[in-house]
Amino acid sequence: MKSCPPLFPDRSQATGYGVNPLDRLSERRDDPAFVDALMRAPESRMALIVRDTPVLRRLSGERWDCLFTLEAARALGDLREVALLGRTDERAFFAALLDDSQVVAEESDGARRLRLPGREDVALIDLRTIAMGGLVEAPAIGLLGQAKSLLYWHLRHRFCSVCGQPSELAAAGWRRECPACQALHFPRTDPVVIMLAVDGERCLLGRQPRFNKGMYSALAGFLEPGETIEAAVRREIREEAGVSVGRVHYIASQPWPFPSSLMIGCLAEALTTTIVVEPSELEDARWFSREEVVAMLEARHPGGLKPSNPLAIAHHLMRAWVELT
Amino acid sequence: MKSCPPLFPDRSQATGYGVNPLDRLSERRDDPAFVDALMRAPESRMALIVRDTPVLRRLSGERWDCLFTLEAARALGDLREVALLGRTDERAFFAALLDDSQVVAEESDGARRLRLPGREDVALIDLRTIAMGGLVEAPAIGLLGQAKSLLYWHLRHRFCSVCGQPSELAAAGWRRECPACQALHFPRTDPVVIMLAVDGERCLLGRQPRFNKGMYSALAGFLEPGETIEAAVRREIREEAGVSVGRVHYIASQPWPFPSSLMIGCLAEALTTTIVVEPSELEDARWFSREEVVAMLEARHPGGLKPSNPLAIAHHLMRAWVELT
Repeated sequence: MKSCPPLFPDRSQATGYGVNPLDRLSERRDDPAFVDALMRAPESRMALIVRDTPVLRRLSGERWDCLFTLEAARALGDLREVALLGRTDERAFFAALLDDSQVVAEESDGARRLRLPGREDVALIDLRTIAMGGLVEAPAIGLLGQAKSLLYWHLRHRFCSVCGQPSELAAAGWRRECPACQALHFPRTDPVVIMLAVDGERCLLGRQPRFNKGMYSALAGFLEPGETIEAAVRREIREEAGVSVGRVHYIASQPWPFPSSLMIGCLAEALTTTIVVEPSELEDARWFSREEVVAMLEARHPGGLKPSNPLAIAHHLMRAWVELT
Repeated sequence: MKSCPPLFPDRSQATGYGVNPLDRLSERRDDPAFVDALMRAPESRMALIVRDTPVLRRLSGERWDCLFTLEAARALGDLREVALLGRTDERAFFAALLDDSQVVAEESDGARRLRLPGREDVALIDLRTIAMGGLVEAPAIGLLGQAKSLLYWHLRHRFCSVCGQPSELAAAGWRRECPACQALHFPRTDPVVIMLAVDGERCLLGRQPRFNKGMYSALAGFLEPGETIEAAVRREIREEAGVSVGRVHYIASQPWPFPSSLMIGCLAEALTTTIVVEPSELEDARWFSREEVVAMLEARHPGGLKPSNPLAIAHHLMRAWVELT
């Protein structure tokens, strides 16, 4: 796939998984003849997911590609839940769940890795590792995120939640239908608010116990039914750090395919400054000066503190705050 | 419930269902003793939903309340899927699905209405009618939206989508658990982008065939897995009206409990002006001058054209555009 530079630089496109060059062809998904013709076109390509892990093929050394011809994809095993991702000017792109019955799991260096025995030309590599290592280009990472979120939803929705009977894929992978009760089911995307509370020249960062040593990041949490974005931002900061905030400013968004979140990034004006950390959520939270955040972003913090990785929208919220204020 | 004025006027709080005074107590949902004590407290109140329709009790004439004591709620029938919505300083609020086996459906004036025979003191009124007519106060409408979205999700998720077995309510109504395969399921909220394309002093409005006569509104569509908010805005305007847009500006958001959307309202800068309407989505779309939109908002459009109702975020996007630009 050719690299596709963003036409309109927005902060959302600076995030990991945020660039995706495909025309999703959503109005053609219910046209089986059209979709079949794309499936038969020799230039079409397919991304493969095993459970929640992308399949990469080795080009040479540490150069990888995430796209297979449909013939090569079928040669790897049975394809389930084939979905049309979209197309560029050159070709259409599909994604499918590759049957996992041939896959073996191995422990090495304390990590669990999946492998397809006898196929040393392909590797099963989790999407975070692919994105962190830049194993494929940014637009392909966006495409893999789209594929992973969509196919993992299929994997977890093979039965109708209304009546319990098996459901079937429809609309080129963008719907499931229940033959028993006729219910329709659509892929889910879970909105998450992620934000910095701002008190004049200071912003609020916290750390979860699972974070890498020295890393501080934005607070975050799932938006709930019945909430506005602004209400969810106020609730999460109050719950996790005991700080009240007033006005909320949207900055950027990011698809976060673990498994299918939409990160909605905001700055929020603090009305109170006393922090009460909720220990089930955070191991620490405190106010950081602009100088300290700049030092973290420039990897020269005297205490060795680090921001989140540039793949994550939290990094770009920290950048937006030091640039905008 | 006492009226709770918004502390921080933001445009999101001007939308229907956008004001909700409850502390959701999300960190206490897994504490059954705490939740049980709230259930037993005589000051606690409960909202009731039958299928997707709220139950109101008549106070006098056309004055209604949507809240029941727990004793009064139980007297109406079996309660399923009891959920803790949250609390104010005065009391806790719950919601439950009322068993629908006693409910009868009647046709009148071409509309289908639900009724509980023998209980003329209560009425089953759909949430749009409640909100349009202001039958209860704004904070109670927000609470009913929260209740309806959450309980309708339970109604449609009584079976595990992973394995097909019956699942069970947990976490005071904010999770379902599958005893067979141990899968956890959380309420869904579906992000929808809704936007005006803006070309200098003109904005793009369209009408769907189902709209009331003369009404024009913002374009809208579901955000998909793998998209940023900005990408979804660009895709939807291109798909529905054939117009390309560049920069996207977030304005406000709204919970839209039909059944559980999050409306994300934006303005988007047009790069092209030729409109190609997608007939499966819209029956018309065209550019409107500022003067024309002001006339629509002030109910004095010479052609009788109307904006969407102030309950809908589209109305507030039109206001934001004429006020901001």
